[in-house]
Amino acid sequence: MKIQTTSNGFDLVLDGRLILRHRSDAPCLFVGQGDARMHMYRGNFDIEDYVIERTPLAHAVVSGSVIAFSAAPGQPVRLTLQMSGDEHNGAIAFRADDAAINRLWVRIAAEQGEHVWGGGEQMSYFDMRGRRFPLWTSEPGVGRDKTTEITFKADVTGKSGGDYWNTNYPQPTYLSSRRYALHVETTSYSAFDFRRDDFHEIEVWAVPDRIELTARPTFIALVEVMSERFGRQPTLPEWVYGGAIIGLKDGANSFERLERIIAAGTKVSGVWCEDWVGLRHTSFGARLFWDWKANDDRYPALRQRIAELEDRGIRFLGYVNPYLAVDGSLFPEAEAAGYFATDESGKTALVDFGEFDCGVVDFTNPEAAAWFAERVIGQNMIDYGLSGWMADFGEYLPIDVKLANDVDAKVMHNAWPTLWAEVNARAVESRGRTGEILFFMRAGFTGVQKHCPLLWAGDQSVDFTRHDGLVTVISGALSSGLLGNAYHHSDIGGYTSLFGNVRTAELIMRWAEMGAFTPVMRTHEGNRPRDNLQIDQDPQVLAHFARMTRVYVHLVPYLKALVEEASTQGLPVQRPLFLHFEGDARTYAIQDAYLYGADLLVAPVSQAGRTEWSTYLPAGADWVHVWTNETFAGGSDVTVPVPFGQPPVFYRAGTRFAALFAGLRTL
Amino acid sequence: MKIQTTSNGFDLVLDGRLILRHRSDAPCLFVGQGDARMHMYRGNFDIEDYVIERTPLAHAVVSGSVIAFSAAPGQPVRLTLQMSGDEHNGAIAFRADDAAINRLWVRIAAEQGEHVWGGGEQMSYFDMRGRRFPLWTSEPGVGRDKTTEITFKADVTGKSGGDYWNTNYPQPTYLSSRRYALHVETTSYSAFDFRRDDFHEIEVWAVPDRIELTARPTFIALVEVMSERFGRQPTLPEWVYGGAIIGLKDGANSFERLERIIAAGTKVSGVWCEDWVGLRHTSFGARLFWDWKANDDRYPALRQRIAELEDRGIRFLGYVNPYLAVDGSLFPEAEAAGYFATDESGKTALVDFGEFDCGVVDFTNPEAAAWFAERVIGQNMIDYGLSGWMADFGEYLPIDVKLANDVDAKVMHNAWPTLWAEVNARAVESRGRTGEILFFMRAGFTGVQKHCPLLWAGDQSVDFTRHDGLVTVISGALSSGLLGNAYHHSDIGGYTSLFGNVRTAELIMRWAEMGAFTPVMRTHEGNRPRDNLQIDQDPQVLAHFARMTRVYVHLVPYLKALVEEASTQGLPVQRPLFLHFEGDARTYAIQDAYLYGADLLVAPVSQAGRTEWSTYLPAGADWVHVWTNETFAGGSDVTVPVPFGQPPVFYRAGTRFAALFAGLRTL
Repeated sequence: MKIQTTSNGFDLVLDGRLILRHRSDAPCLFVGQGDARMHMYRGNFDIEDYVIERTPLAHAVVSGSVIAFSAAPGQPVRLTLQMSGDEHNGAIAFRADDAAINRLWVRIAAEQGEHVWGGGEQMSYFDMRGRRFPLWTSEPGVGRDKTTEITFKADVTGKSGGDYWNTNYPQPTYLSSRRYALHVETTSYSAFDFRRDDFHEIEVWAVPDRIELTARPTFIALVEVMSERFGRQPTLPEWVYGGAIIGLKDGANSFERLERIIAAGTKVSGVWCEDWVGLRHTSFGARLFWDWKANDDRYPALRQRIAELEDRGIRFLGYVNPYLAVDGSLFPEAEAAGYFATDESGKTALVDFGEFDCGVVDFTNPEAAAWFAERVIGQNMIDYGLSGWMADFGEYLPIDVKLANDVDAKVMHNAWPTLWAEVNARAVESRGRTGEILFFMRAGFTGVQKHCPLLWAGDQSVDFTRHDGLVTVISGALSSGLLGNAYHHSDIGGYTSLFGNVRTAELIMRWAEMGAFTPVMRTHEGNRPRDNLQIDQDPQVLAHFARMTRVYVHLVPYLKALVEEASTQGLPVQRPLFLHFEGDARTYAIQDAYLYGADLLVAPVSQAGRTEWSTYLPAGADWVHVWTNETFAGGSDVTVPVPFGQPPVFYRAGTRFAALFAGLRTL
Repeated sequence: MKIQTTSNGFDLVLDGRLILRHRSDAPCLFVGQGDARMHMYRGNFDIEDYVIERTPLAHAVVSGSVIAFSAAPGQPVRLTLQMSGDEHNGAIAFRADDAAINRLWVRIAAEQGEHVWGGGEQMSYFDMRGRRFPLWTSEPGVGRDKTTEITFKADVTGKSGGDYWNTNYPQPTYLSSRRYALHVETTSYSAFDFRRDDFHEIEVWAVPDRIELTARPTFIALVEVMSERFGRQPTLPEWVYGGAIIGLKDGANSFERLERIIAAGTKVSGVWCEDWVGLRHTSFGARLFWDWKANDDRYPALRQRIAELEDRGIRFLGYVNPYLAVDGSLFPEAEAAGYFATDESGKTALVDFGEFDCGVVDFTNPEAAAWFAERVIGQNMIDYGLSGWMADFGEYLPIDVKLANDVDAKVMHNAWPTLWAEVNARAVESRGRTGEILFFMRAGFTGVQKHCPLLWAGDQSVDFTRHDGLVTVISGALSSGLLGNAYHHSDIGGYTSLFGNVRTAELIMRWAEMGAFTPVMRTHEGNRPRDNLQIDQDPQVLAHFARMTRVYVHLVPYLKALVEEASTQGLPVQRPLFLHFEGDARTYAIQDAYLYGADLLVAPVSQAGRTEWSTYLPAGADWVHVWTNETFAGGSDVTVPVPFGQPPVFYRAGTRFAALFAGLRTL
């Protein structure tokens, strides 16, 4: 990284890439103060900033690798930047010389035609150029499109409609098509604004620790560095390769249904019963009972059942989240030990989750975190026999609680998903079962990669909508994958059914077709199982699903090779097309298709009523359509028929897996 | 006005009222630069500001009446304020010493419990404390409440849902309960932010010319000053007192319908046919043909008809707006003379109004304004025999056109309604008929008072909704009335019928009950006459309406006294309760009732399905319920029965008009 001074400023250049361009009449840095109004309602945030001051720091004094910024010559230094790094890697450390600063804006040099990706897990826009992205973990929104009725109704009834940028997993990191990555090391509220032609503006509601920069000649090399930087997942458990994980939350009845599903020819690796903790009945319907231990009433003799299933190669998975209901057995134990976040008066802070209140276990207290890992997850879940679970939530840390580490909850809010992942990972590690127990999370932030073995795409609506339906899963996989999250999957059939929006058979089938080409296939009954079609309720859907589990299992030899690449290189299993075709700029904004490893291109049917599907095949290879064996030259759009069971999938001609892929036709 | 310096700042005090409090660590002034994105779609604006710089001007040097502001000692002066005035009146003149400044924020000292009113014509919130009000003339919005289906649908289909602050008539002026008024002299985009406890923040997207301050011991005295400052309307034409103005747009058929309405006992002063110019048929339905002259096809022998009506004491009114359709007869005339605003290339700028384009007559060109006044309004309208018209629009000046005066269209946008009013007023004046011809406008801005003899409340939805229904008219009348607009009225029955929302008989009747207690009674067929009930389609509605016109006429002696007060004192005909009861703080936020002059209190039934209505009667007087003669002591809430035809109206016991008011019972 080089600082090149000019008569009235400097350029910061990383391996030939202009990163900062500072001139006294066009500064790259602004500081000031803001006073934010933040309101949380059940994980949805209403945030508005009142910017009191935003001062351009026009005057920069460069002394070696240190740059001191002030508003004007002779004025006090307000911010000092310390540059470090080598030719390809840089870090800009920030030091506030003015303690009053709580807002900072940096302009990063940008180019016309530049693309940017990342920002954590982005569900609506994979290429982030042209838009602004607040980075704050929250509910993802229902509908996520202010022009739709569902979004409107969700907004009006629960402030929960969301928008394109809402995500469970934000991360202040992006990759640029200029072959560099930029990461802001902070957990404070931040936003990436990619709407300007000449610069990207990074906004942080704090003075961040540092900005990290990485330049590499290829996208693959950049992604490898991201994975090293943020942490690499263990390999998938061997048992996962046995087939799909079937989501059932029907009490003991779940097992009878499981047998019928298996009898239909379904390959099954696990059964996931989130209601293993029992139910709470509210006016909104049945909810889970948030006291993390097996419920004998709902699942009699579960321990024995788990053992019997395991003997047949079928694992049992459960559910947990970081809250404890006031009327559960764990709450008084945690409260007596002082493990909860507190309110201003020092009392346990209670969060309303809809007709029941919970305490928030304070993971900044090492003893509380250790207790949750050992007492709750270790004893009640792992020792009981669970092989995995949904580690739900992580986005709801209230912004006004008091924490053991004395850091402002607004600063810890974004850190929470990673702390939560760490508690889960430590519990697994404590039993020596890392890489064998599989938990999955929707929430994330910087560093979640190190602890969470598998992301799930959160709570899509049960539809094909552009901003909350099936297609958003792909954007989620691709964006998070570039930042070191190798494993991603989603609820087959979607999750959120509200305002009369229910699943169609077609939706479940198209979703299963996509799920077969992801590292983990898992179904979900959704938030309203009784109102929505289930995979075992329609013979055509069940037969189709069973077939897709056989596709998944058939591909295991290939998937294992991808897992190996994830483990050694940090490459995600699902990849944007440009990762292997970076010379083909037409691939840069594609977000409805992906490479499943280097050799399979998957273009899921993400709209209803389609009998044909068109997709772009990247230039530089020939592509064989899996179901017809027809070969297409790359560099063009192709259209293929898409009867149910034949999702648009192409393999790279000449791949060493050609025989395996050709075998799909015979299933 | 006094400047009191302190060790690190100053206080600006007007007649004992702290206006500015400046300290180096708590400055009152901020300047900087912004880059706004503005998009107009059919009069609805999408505006977002990118604030590049907002620098506190912490260092103030007071030299007599001049205060020089800079960011810090030794830094260049960026803004100079020149104070002037006497004990009760002050002006702060602004001079930019830095030409780059295009944003300015001033903090005005505020108190807990303070109320503020004004902001032009505010339809949703009369008391503006606790909210932020952008001040930019635009369409007012359909629904104006983001939680309603109508607003949602209007937003999605036409970006036209609006919000609480959208108004045709903004004005950067407010009155405070601290008995002072503040006016910002600028036409640039501005916003009043009344959300803070300790200060009001005024934001201007320019360095304004000045801020004007007025302190008076009473609200009435303040309102008198406002009327003097902004201009006072001529008295109402004598003919208006004859009854209601009946809005019909049914071609020649209008006259037959008028006769039936008269035959039902309706007192009629005029007939208003906005379709006098003929129709244009679009896919949205019939629109007016925007070429301002009588249309013989739609109204054969209109001139003679007008004369005949006038002989019977019934005036004819028409319609005009400041645009000329490209396919009309006036367009080529104006274009040949170079009277239109132009685009970047110098060609006539065309504005899409929905399947037809129009030119915008450039009123900054004195010749164009004179041409419109003489050739269009003078010859085609006044000389033709019109006694009044709706002078529609004024809010649509595109922000990217080139104008003859070379001022940025963004700066002229807010000025346009006043220029438009002036064109109309000059036309009337040119025929010596000021105070005899009555035109009415919805758009406004600073100075419209001087030219426009009558406001109308714009385009309410045909319902009782809180933010777009009947009740909003009251807030509009009260807010604009405080700023010197003495005359206000509305479309009886409302205007906007969209998405299946149509008039009920009840709505028309309740609206007519209110209209009888406003200076002008006028009906409107609405935007979709065929889908909506009209006053002459239901015998009960027509009989009720006829009765309310008799109420109106019965009150004329009183109304004439109010007109006299408007003329001599500038007091509005419709007044907030606190104007005459300023000792009763319970009146400060009332916006669903008003004083009609000093002696009548009107509390219109503004909700559906009501058989009783409650209202607060101010302390300091006894109040006689008009329909029952029951007397109530002021200072309490009272409930009265509200059968149709008996709106909740009370007169002040002991008024010299007691006999007149008592006579209402005998109608």
